[in-house]
Amino acid sequence: MSTIKIIYFDLDGGRAEPIRLALSIANTEFEDKRISFPEFGELKSTLPLGAVPVAEIDGETYTQCNALNRYFGKQAGLYPDDAWQAFLCDEVMDIIEDASNAMGKTMGLQGDALKAAREELASGKLASILRLLNKRLEDAGSEYFADSKLTMADLKMLELLGTLTSGFFDHIPTDIVQKQAPLLVTHMQKVMSDQGVSAYYQKRSQ
Amino acid sequence: MSTIKIIYFDLDGGRAEPIRLALSIANTEFEDKRISFPEFGELKSTLPLGAVPVAEIDGETYTQCNALNRYFGKQAGLYPDDAWQAFLCDEVMDIIEDASNAMGKTMGLQGDALKAAREELASGKLASILRLLNKRLEDAGSEYFADSKLTMADLKMLELLGTLTSGFFDHIPTDIVQKQAPLLVTHMQKVMSDQGVSAYYQKRSQ
Repeated sequence: MSTIKIIYFDLDGGRAEPIRLALSIANTEFEDKRISFPEFGELKSTLPLGAVPVAEIDGETYTQCNALNRYFGKQAGLYPDDAWQAFLCDEVMDIIEDASNAMGKTMGLQGDALKAAREELASGKLASILRLLNKRLEDAGSEYFADSKLTMADLKMLELLGTLTSGFFDHIPTDIVQKQAPLLVTHMQKVMSDQGVSAYYQKRSQ
Repeated sequence: MSTIKIIYFDLDGGRAEPIRLALSIANTEFEDKRISFPEFGELKSTLPLGAVPVAEIDGETYTQCNALNRYFGKQAGLYPDDAWQAFLCDEVMDIIEDASNAMGKTMGLQGDALKAAREELASGKLASILRLLNKRLEDAGSEYFADSKLTMADLKMLELLGTLTSGFFDHIPTDIVQKQAPLLVTHMQKVMSDQGVSAYYQKRSQ
């Protein structure tokens, strides 16, 4: 048995959320180390790439959330065996990373510069990303992104939808998902009502 | 048989290079569509996310180079079956994307702003990335990144090393790899002398 510690911000969302969900669904014991932003500031210089999430596995620190999603997803039965279905799952996960990176680039801007950057993002790259995700979901049958069942791609979507609909990003309209990718709204309801997912959040809320 | 077209810049390197190599090593027929920068400008608005590489497979356009690396890598016997070895391969591929994204952010800057951004990158994020890659290679036995044989992670390294040692990026010292990650230099020689890789470049040079 490996000892596993996942280090990330104290949010029920973001880049670590699919990893936490996969580990929980697989009933794998792990330390869910949640840190504050000041704690991250202190820890940053000790992290391999100065970023979270990281996974400490048997004492070594590993990076890259989608690589970790894939690894823990396989253990949870949430990753396709079929190479093409695995591609569809992978493409969606990396498209969402594209969105997160694009949103990350606007962090730190202020005032008019922030407003301009966010509005350009919302009508440009983010709109393209949402439309592509909507198309991929539709092409796959409108229920799940790959394998006709819940996979890590569906859980990764929680990361994007949670961020976009929460109003966390000023100047990104909170109805952007509804307008650009309506299938993602019903998809998210389906994911949240999955037995493993809902059991996890029920436990979290206790 | 699928029809496959890979669209990317006319470079023997960059984000499409591991895909082209995997397809060639697997003897898979594909159209290697190489475009100029002006042609990219014309094509950009028709691409799903306004970026290359993309793969047209049976008429549909797919994105995300590492997802494509994994899919075509499996067909070429260049991707590990074992979940942990697959993780090691995946982590390296995504670390290299981190580096490419960080370098991409400095494109378009000019003069002193470019110099300052590139110097900060070289001594900061890029140095951290190279040291981590050096460590991962050493931990895996110093020859290959995963599976004790050539995988897509090794081919992906061509993308990073080619860029860093070519002098393409002003203000990034061309000896940065030698200084921060000396194992990557001998690793690159090993990859280039691989039978499939060297056969591909021999054919390209004809």
